[in-house]
Amino acid sequence: MKDRILLLLEERNFSALKPVISEMNEVDIADFLEEIAPDDRLRVFRILPKSLAAATFVELDRDTKEALIRSLTDSELKSVIDEMFLDDTVDLIEEMPANVVKRLLKQSDKETRNIINEILKYPKDSAGSIMTTEFIRFREDMTVREAFRKIRELAIDSETIYTCYVTDRSKRLLGYVTAKTLMLAGREQTIGEIMDTNVIYAVTTDNRETVARRMTDYGFLAMPVVDGEAQLVGIVTVDDAIDVLTEETTEDIARMAAIAPSDKTYLKTSPLELFKNRIPWLLILLVSATFTGLIINAYEARLTAISAVLFACVPMLMDTGGNCGSQASVTVIRALSLGELEAKDIWRVLLKEIGAAMLLGVTLAAACFLKLILIDNLLFGFDGYTPMRCLVVSAALFFTVVIAKIVGCSLPILAKAVRLDPAVVASPFITTVVDALSLIIYCSIAVAVLA
Amino acid sequence: MKDRILLLLEERNFSALKPVISEMNEVDIADFLEEIAPDDRLRVFRILPKSLAAATFVELDRDTKEALIRSLTDSELKSVIDEMFLDDTVDLIEEMPANVVKRLLKQSDKETRNIINEILKYPKDSAGSIMTTEFIRFREDMTVREAFRKIRELAIDSETIYTCYVTDRSKRLLGYVTAKTLMLAGREQTIGEIMDTNVIYAVTTDNRETVARRMTDYGFLAMPVVDGEAQLVGIVTVDDAIDVLTEETTEDIARMAAIAPSDKTYLKTSPLELFKNRIPWLLILLVSATFTGLIINAYEARLTAISAVLFACVPMLMDTGGNCGSQASVTVIRALSLGELEAKDIWRVLLKEIGAAMLLGVTLAAACFLKLILIDNLLFGFDGYTPMRCLVVSAALFFTVVIAKIVGCSLPILAKAVRLDPAVVASPFITTVVDALSLIIYCSIAVAVLA
Repeated sequence: MKDRILLLLEERNFSALKPVISEMNEVDIADFLEEIAPDDRLRVFRILPKSLAAATFVELDRDTKEALIRSLTDSELKSVIDEMFLDDTVDLIEEMPANVVKRLLKQSDKETRNIINEILKYPKDSAGSIMTTEFIRFREDMTVREAFRKIRELAIDSETIYTCYVTDRSKRLLGYVTAKTLMLAGREQTIGEIMDTNVIYAVTTDNRETVARRMTDYGFLAMPVVDGEAQLVGIVTVDDAIDVLTEETTEDIARMAAIAPSDKTYLKTSPLELFKNRIPWLLILLVSATFTGLIINAYEARLTAISAVLFACVPMLMDTGGNCGSQASVTVIRALSLGELEAKDIWRVLLKEIGAAMLLGVTLAAACFLKLILIDNLLFGFDGYTPMRCLVVSAALFFTVVIAKIVGCSLPILAKAVRLDPAVVASPFITTVVDALSLIIYCSIAVAVLA
Repeated sequence: MKDRILLLLEERNFSALKPVISEMNEVDIADFLEEIAPDDRLRVFRILPKSLAAATFVELDRDTKEALIRSLTDSELKSVIDEMFLDDTVDLIEEMPANVVKRLLKQSDKETRNIINEILKYPKDSAGSIMTTEFIRFREDMTVREAFRKIRELAIDSETIYTCYVTDRSKRLLGYVTAKTLMLAGREQTIGEIMDTNVIYAVTTDNRETVARRMTDYGFLAMPVVDGEAQLVGIVTVDDAIDVLTEETTEDIARMAAIAPSDKTYLKTSPLELFKNRIPWLLILLVSATFTGLIINAYEARLTAISAVLFACVPMLMDTGGNCGSQASVTVIRALSLGELEAKDIWRVLLKEIGAAMLLGVTLAAACFLKLILIDNLLFGFDGYTPMRCLVVSAALFFTVVIAKIVGCSLPILAKAVRLDPAVVASPFITTVVDALSLIIYCSIAVAVLA
């Protein structure tokens, strides 16, 4: 398929290309356009039927969109914007630089411009910012027949027609009717008779991730959004909800690895941008590692007198502490983000983690003792590992595990309680805290027992 | 709302409770049932209208489902199963213990039992295992009027009616028609005239995550699934696709933190289960830390002669290496899982990461040199940090960063290339590899320069 299109493109056979490409899905056309040269891209884009052109445009990545806008004529641009759904236009305006935005707004009609400005006023993370204002609104006294007629009239402009909303004179939300209910109802029944009045809705100021999560929990295709006066102002559709969840998960995962979140795809990110996203936390963590160095330095004079062999166990202790901490923190962060866990559950979480930590600590300490005696001492013949020293290392390991679990599970919850993003205090941050604590424990035990 | 229900429940006022609870969404009823005592749960479940009872049952967690099944009579259980969608019944059978499954199958009719057995044959991770066999099938020569009649007859049993599929006599997929198209079409047009023949479909053996990701990329509400003979055998609906993506992301995140994935929610997991999910990797990583110990031991005799102060920098070096490695691996794993990246992109990724690593390495090495001189030497007065030693540490840091990025970005891609889950080689594993390599570099440089 793709080879055939490329061949037709190479032959400049646009009359043969048009029917083939017009049959394709917009997502596939967008992928294809991103791969070819800008000149060809413009030519192919121009042969697309109007509504397909708009649908394809929405699926392009930021840079390709911007380049295309710059090469389209004013009237071409206007026809694309007219065909686009309002929420997609809003997204476009949010991601384009100021001079492009100016041209875009100039090509939209006045009414659209007003709605766009309204939506742009909502905070970036709110339900208002991801809703669309195109939906079908019924009145209670309409018949099913009239409802179908209204759907037929409006459908081309409405992003989803499968859930329609019923409002009173002052636009307050009364209920909803699904396309399924409509199809199963008698033609002469009224909307008031068949509507479901138990509507689950969001408020414009609700957090967009919470709304998206609720939508997918309930399995909704759309969710109505009301403003402060309980008036229906828009709907959030399931495709936007999925986008929000994917974006938020990518952000969480980035934060867990101490990376500043970015909305570019990996292959589109330049090494310089990777550098910028990654350097801040690395620098902070590097400087905070001063503490671990200080701790070793402080104990050094007394420890070298005992056994420098003990230092060889520091990497193992620190890695295990880091791993235990990130296990706990990642589990808790994911549970918080899925809404399985709330800040008030902190005591239940602590009890559970301490329980698990005891089991893990004993198992790991035993394994560590055996490893030191059997592998390091007997197998490799480092006779510095006396049973007493191995016991010191194992005891330190036990306490490290317990502390790592406590720190790892409680920091994300505390972050959530003070309204920080829990993902911010993920693995690397926790590793640093645990490293310092475990070194203090290790050195204290070693000095106390062996000095 | 919830307080009112609890009050009615306490008063045993089931006749007042029934209308209130019947108005609620099944997800909310399920949440409520999970919180109350088993006896009350059974009583409340029994007053639910049939189809709501089935919808609620599907939303309960595994343990509550099992307990409820055990306390329902055979005829009650049969009515729940009869009302459930087939794919939900299959999910239920997959998660229940053998004796419960036996009772469930006994209560389903023969036809259902046959379909269930067919679906259970598909591998756990395949599109076949998540599809439902309930969908609406049209023939080309039907009119829109006949299609509406068929929808009305079947709708109650079909999980989604918004996309209907057109097949020929041998059940091969020809095209699809959305409810929107149907509503906008003339009553006497034939399905053949209005159907879209450009169908994007999955095969029963496709990976379920790939199918779910494609569905959400295309923004589909449903995707048809065909078997090896191109016959339409089922559809995957968007709610199941979202569930698959959420599950797979949770699994990825768990693996990134060296935890065995589990499908229980956090609060339902006991400390013993947490222990079981977490101990395997911790033990493996603990034993593999033997290498880092060995490296220090091997260089120790020569290094202590130079300066034990150098050991104080080991935690900082190792942490930075670990952090750099996990930044790269987490970014690459996420990009692989979103389909932004494929195994063949490895050279582009390597170039990008090495570019970023050079910038990061130089910045971090400079910061490290300044930190050692200014903070550790001048501020805290550890005069062991001579400029030459600080230079050794900084040089080692530079190489550690570069190696960490190379290992961190390439291991997940190599894992993918040999068909392993990339998330398996995430942070903890990479940290271990990077630790060993960075210690060798550090010690070698120190011995070469300072000995």
